[in-house]
Order: sequence, then structure tokens, then C-alpha cells
Amino acid sequence: MIILHHLNQSRSLRILWLLEELQQPYQLKTYARNANTRLAPPKLKHIHPLGKSPILELNGKVIAESGAIVELLIQKFAPHLAPTPDTDAYMDYLQWIHFSESSAMVPYLLTIFNGIEKQKGTQLQFLDQYAYNELHKVFAYLDQSLAGKQFLVENRLTGADFMLGFVVQGVIYHLQLAEQYPNIAQYLKNLEALPSWKRALDIEQNL
Amino acid sequence: MIILHHLNQSRSLRILWLLEELQQPYQLKTYARNANTRLAPPKLKHIHPLGKSPILELNGKVIAESGAIVELLIQKFAPHLAPTPDTDAYMDYLQWIHFSESSAMVPYLLTIFNGIEKQKGTQLQFLDQYAYNELHKVFAYLDQSLAGKQFLVENRLTGADFMLGFVVQGVIYHLQLAEQYPNIAQYLKNLEALPSWKRALDIEQNL
Repeated sequence: MIILHHLNQSRSLRILWLLEELQQPYQLKTYARNANTRLAPPKLKHIHPLGKSPILELNGKVIAESGAIVELLIQKFAPHLAPTPDTDAYMDYLQWIHFSESSAMVPYLLTIFNGIEKQKGTQLQFLDQYAYNELHKVFAYLDQSLAGKQFLVENRLTGADFMLGFVVQGVIYHLQLAEQYPNIAQYLKNLEALPSWKRALDIEQNL
Repeated sequence: MIILHHLNQSRSLRILWLLEELQQPYQLKTYARNANTRLAPPKLKHIHPLGKSPILELNGKVIAESGAIVELLIQKFAPHLAPTPDTDAYMDYLQWIHFSESSAMVPYLLTIFNGIEKQKGTQLQFLDQYAYNELHKVFAYLDQSLAGKQFLVENRLTGADFMLGFVVQGVIYHLQLAEQYPNIAQYLKNLEALPSWKRALDIEQNL
């Protein structure tokens, strides 16, 4: 009924973690990045034309986009992971779900991509400064929003955390910004303490 | 009750168009980009720490992220602009809403940003090819998905169109890809024929 097409080190970790939290039966089909290019294997395109992961199959219907999959799985199987509609918390919930893939992900990806370009010896004149400014504006806001909280919305685990965990992992471990953003670093520790996160990471590491 | 903090030539056009379609009373507060830097004015940060637009105020509660605002306004004021939950169309709807700001927007923005970098004389070795490959993979998929259709989901106007219109406008006019993607170009014409789109563009052009 539920099939997750999962690529290692991808946004699919969001869905693997959510499925482990839901404790719904699901089937995991795994794909490995090309060790040299880091690209997804071409056969993912046979599952969905975007050729990315996560891809979810639900009763035979196939969709992409991790934000859509998180929203859908929570609506269908775990409404307790979203605030009650028509509350301020619900507005925050939607904001943070979209923030995780829009405002947060764009400067994070730019920083990663600029790093690859600079490793080739290119001197960037615009992109580096732009990404730096955006990254720090966005993550300073997130850090401030997490002050004194264990989780992001209603201070309890919601879909917003499932979206944000993947970005925050990158910011803390890959960009190494724990000292600069102590609340984000503490938040990541809170996520890492969850049994469902541990099970998902364990599956990912043993693929 | 509804206030839109609107910056010219921004994702806020999605919300302006949606509000014109909803025909709910709303208040428009406008902000102008700096003519030289193209950046949003600092006073937007007093409304929301991200300092971006759109920002929506709904009964005094403030949120950012155009995808969140589209979902919220449709849930509250125009459920007819979304498919019935628990249908395949609803899964498509969520996919395309998130696609518009994730899969589609990332390579579009990369292409724009790389263009600024190249105007400064930088020779890119990785970023240009990466953005080109992603852009064409993503918009070939969109073009194919729009074949023979007037609108994206259930072939009727939904929230997915409000999210996608802004990207498609950029791809057709700014990147000038109408010949390469005729279904996308036709789809944009379909959107441009809507009275609510015309009213929104008229407001935008007379700011």
C-alpha cells in the first residue's frame, strides 16, 4: 500500500523518518547515488519523470516532492502530527513546512553548490556573498524561533520538524554552524533523541 | 482582517492573484525593491524577520512563505480551489504546490543567479551545467504534464496554478523558453486570460 523509493543522503530521509514514526506498514525500495557524480541512478526516472527521491507510491498512485508527501501522510495517517486547523499554530505549521524547502533550502543548496564551484578554483564575485547573506538571515531567524523550545510548533513533534530535520542536519554537520546557532544545534539533538529518528538513521546507514 | 505585504516582482504576485480570485476584502501594503540592488527594503523585516514578501496578516497573525499562504487561504476561503481530499487529484495538487517552490524554483533561481555572476565576467565550471541540466529536466516534465490541458490539476483552476504561474512567467518571459516548451507557453496564455490574473497584473503594474 505504501512504497517509499528511497535514495541515500537525500530529502527522502524526511519520509523514512516519518514512516518510522507512523508505524504504518511500508515497503522500502532503495537506490544508491553514483559514487563519483553523486547523482541519482537513471532508473529512478522510470518511477517518476523527475528522477529524484523521495517518491511515494500510495495505493498505486505515485508522487514526488517531500513537502507534499509529508503533508499527505500526516493528513491520512497521523493528524495528531499537525495542529488543529483554524489556529495560529496551524499557520505556523504551514509556514515552517514550506520554509524548510523554500527559504531555508535555497541558501543551503547555494552554499553547497558554490563550494563545489570554488573547489574547481573559480573566484565567485556575486554568488558567494549572496548565499552567505541569505543563509545567515534565514538561520538566525530559525535559531531565534527555536530559543527555549524542544520542537518548532506547539513545542511538540509535528510535520514541520520532519521537514526541517534534514536541513538542520546539513547546517549543523555539513556547514558546521553549531557554535553560531546553538538553539538549532540543541534542536537537532532533540530530534536525534527520538526513537523514530534513530531507527531511520539506522536503516539509512545500513543500506 | 486580511493584509498582504506586497513587494513588486516577487512571489507575492501569487497571493495578489489569489486574493483577486477569492474576492475577499483585503488590504494591500506595498513595498518597492531598491532600484540598484533589487533587494527588498529593510522595513519589511519589521513585519516579519525574514524580510521577504509575500507576508500575510490574517486576524493579526503574521506568516511568510507563499506556499503556506496559498494553502491557508484556499483552506479558509476557497476550498473549491483544491481537489477533494483522498483522491489522486489531491495528491497531484499537493505535489505541484510543492514542486513550484522546490523542484521548479531551485534551477530557475540558479539560472538567474548564475547569469548575474557571468555578467561579472566569471567563467563557471560546475554551476552553469548543473543548473542547465536540472532546469531542462524539470521543465520538460512540466511541459509534458501540461500537454492537452488548460490547467494543471483536474484541468480546472486550483491552488497549484497560483503557485506555478509565477515560475512559468519567469521561464517563458525571462528565460525565453516558449519555443522549447510550447505547452508551458500555452498554459501561461491560459492563465493570462483569467480576469483575476489581469486584475493582479494591473495592480502590480500601477504600483
